[in-house]
Amino acid sequence: MESQIIEALTGIVGDKGILTGTDVTQRLEGWIGAPQCSAKAIVRPANTEELSAVMALCHHYDQRVTTHGGMTGLVGGAISSSEDIVVSLERMRTIVEVDAENRTLTAEAGVTLQAIQEAADSADLFYPVDLGARGSATIGGNISTNAGGNRVLRYGMTRESVLGLEAVLADGTVISSLSKVIKNNTGYDLRQLFIGSEGTLGIVTKAVLRLRAKPRGEATALVAVEDFNQLSKLLSLAESALSGSLSSFEVMWNDFYSLVTSFERHRAPLPSSSPFYVILETQGSSNESEQARLEALLGEALEQELISDAVLTQSVSEREKVWAIRDDVEALFSMVPIHGFDISLPIPAMQDYLEKLKHNLLKKWPDGRLVAFGHLGDGNLHVVIGQIPMEDKEALNEVVYRGLAQLGGSISAEHGIGLEKKAYLQHSRSEAELELMRILKQALDPKRLLNPGKIFD
Amino acid sequence: MESQIIEALTGIVGDKGILTGTDVTQRLEGWIGAPQCSAKAIVRPANTEELSAVMALCHHYDQRVTTHGGMTGLVGGAISSSEDIVVSLERMRTIVEVDAENRTLTAEAGVTLQAIQEAADSADLFYPVDLGARGSATIGGNISTNAGGNRVLRYGMTRESVLGLEAVLADGTVISSLSKVIKNNTGYDLRQLFIGSEGTLGIVTKAVLRLRAKPRGEATALVAVEDFNQLSKLLSLAESALSGSLSSFEVMWNDFYSLVTSFERHRAPLPSSSPFYVILETQGSSNESEQARLEALLGEALEQELISDAVLTQSVSEREKVWAIRDDVEALFSMVPIHGFDISLPIPAMQDYLEKLKHNLLKKWPDGRLVAFGHLGDGNLHVVIGQIPMEDKEALNEVVYRGLAQLGGSISAEHGIGLEKKAYLQHSRSEAELELMRILKQALDPKRLLNPGKIFD
Repeated sequence: MESQIIEALTGIVGDKGILTGTDVTQRLEGWIGAPQCSAKAIVRPANTEELSAVMALCHHYDQRVTTHGGMTGLVGGAISSSEDIVVSLERMRTIVEVDAENRTLTAEAGVTLQAIQEAADSADLFYPVDLGARGSATIGGNISTNAGGNRVLRYGMTRESVLGLEAVLADGTVISSLSKVIKNNTGYDLRQLFIGSEGTLGIVTKAVLRLRAKPRGEATALVAVEDFNQLSKLLSLAESALSGSLSSFEVMWNDFYSLVTSFERHRAPLPSSSPFYVILETQGSSNESEQARLEALLGEALEQELISDAVLTQSVSEREKVWAIRDDVEALFSMVPIHGFDISLPIPAMQDYLEKLKHNLLKKWPDGRLVAFGHLGDGNLHVVIGQIPMEDKEALNEVVYRGLAQLGGSISAEHGIGLEKKAYLQHSRSEAELELMRILKQALDPKRLLNPGKIFD
Repeated sequence: MESQIIEALTGIVGDKGILTGTDVTQRLEGWIGAPQCSAKAIVRPANTEELSAVMALCHHYDQRVTTHGGMTGLVGGAISSSEDIVVSLERMRTIVEVDAENRTLTAEAGVTLQAIQEAADSADLFYPVDLGARGSATIGGNISTNAGGNRVLRYGMTRESVLGLEAVLADGTVISSLSKVIKNNTGYDLRQLFIGSEGTLGIVTKAVLRLRAKPRGEATALVAVEDFNQLSKLLSLAESALSGSLSSFEVMWNDFYSLVTSFERHRAPLPSSSPFYVILETQGSSNESEQARLEALLGEALEQELISDAVLTQSVSEREKVWAIRDDVEALFSMVPIHGFDISLPIPAMQDYLEKLKHNLLKKWPDGRLVAFGHLGDGNLHVVIGQIPMEDKEALNEVVYRGLAQLGGSISAEHGIGLEKKAYLQHSRSEAELELMRILKQALDPKRLLNPGKIFD
């Protein structure tokens, strides 16, 4: 029967559209360093119609299907088994339209985030979602995982940038909701079923994205803060003073800042004696205007004693040096073996949570090290814990995720659940919520063929 | 059996929690002028637990339930029949918490929009959704209908302001997803099921709302535009030059502006000889800074010949006079009988659509009059058609909604579908989309007890 399915699939997508044998196993099932891909075949439809026929066929044969985007996810959401057919959207990478007047971009799911950013830029517009994997990550993957990134504070998650969506259901039905308008209250918002559901309810094939006006200038500052309570006051002041222009409010705890700036490649713009550091960035009318507004804000913050020190960058290279501190993931590898966590918490609960976490960590692993940084404005905390053996990962997960629920936190701010966080989902979601998720899954994919085993069982 | 249900319901909510007989019929089933309410009883639970028990009971007896919020909807979404039990959330009007540090507000569903705005304001914060019915409309109703309003361009619809939600399902199950964080990618986003689904999938009981920094100042201008194509160029320029501060971009077609300013209560700030007028509003750091930025923008727009004339308001009273033109619904009643439409369209399709609509209108009703205005930036067009007999409403609907789908438009930008637009839903949604909506309804409310007959059959 396996050869029968492969033959029928080949009939739909042609020889070019199907990979088997070593063409499958030479691919990885995730990010660099991941194990090799395992699947009956990788099917690469050329368009939505082909994918629809592929899915109808798989549905007929009760064939499980896992979808591949750019394979840059961090929670094992695209891992397949030898029983699966993998669908890759890699041949569907056409930017269908850039409508500059309506400020929308329509693209097939296999287009990379970077290609979308560039196409928007060419039309003198701006697609605001951005993340490190932009060159490989696809828009289909971004949508399926509701990707976040650095500008969520101002522009929202990917969910907020998707105006229209086309998806193929488990049985091959094509749901085309390619709306190009922001306001559209006509019955259930079907887009939401496919955004962030990690390919378990349907396969995203096309999207209409909302583009924004391109900022004409920016300004960046690094400030030191002496007390956690000042951080949210500073955030409020910045949002109010910079109004809609505040684009980043990145907090680095001292552990992080000290560690990173201890490397010679950085020259610390501020001494590493303060408990908190914040990168403030504003994007607005012009470099001059933003510089003036940020300078005024810093003056106000100093006067109100919300910050103890500040550097307002004066050039692109100074700005890049500040961001290089925040982005220096490499420095964290000095604490190997390291374990990264992407959680979110209401701001008032953050500091308490971190202190307790550190306490519990050191009690269990006296050599453990913890550094924290994050997009405070949207509650997202990145915690990297080092010097803990890889085999203790599960015990460590328990320590990190425990207690998050009762603080109103989430075990996954932006990375999703996939396989890796599945066992811990009940730390963030109640049994009633999980049951409703199962009802949705049952309604849309009763044979459980789509991305099997991901998010929940 | 009816008396049995009423008795059992009274056992749950107490005498104070139930209305029957003339206490039901003296209520209206909608906005002022609507017919009187019809129902077996109006049940007014005091809290979520009571509502859960009410729903479990109704589920047991296959009892249909229609939910009442502030009764300010415009599409008959809250109309009940004599076979229904009405659930009103009017006793659930507690603001549970204002968390100024985390900038969230948690409220029961029966709290009015205005009370939420005021509570945010008292904490020196800002809840951005605003609409005329703010004093009566409840947050539960706002959420169930995904209310829009005047600031969608900058802050999004109600959907974008809801961080967490609690709802009761048809069988009484309580789904509590009261997250207080912006980033939360932990499985399916269950909030979305209840936002904008008009009470057909569950009853919203509580919400966590995202608050924003309060703008410190604003500036408003009225400009004249000679060519439709200039409008979207002006919008792009405004978004780019004012960056994130642009809060309104309200377009009035000449028909609208001429009609309204012909009344003596207005003194037209600009002569009524231009085809388009736009109200530009920016909310930002201070009155002075916003005035300066808006003035610079107007200079740039004049230079680029995007606008032909402009008035920058210099005082609160001047600003109010400009807005009074846009908000003068009363003036439209000079065209009675009038019919209002709330549609959306991609910007490039708007003018063509309106010209064709006017042509078709006058062909059929030579005395018909059409005025248009709207939030151009989010594709929302309000069309008011006058001097058409009420009995021609259905034929008029066909003329207005026909052709919207192929232009990528929507028959309801912000008002929803309810009963009134149900017959026209297929103008905006494909059969596959409608079928998926039915699958969702079947999964969550298989007995079809919740807000029966609304949106689709």
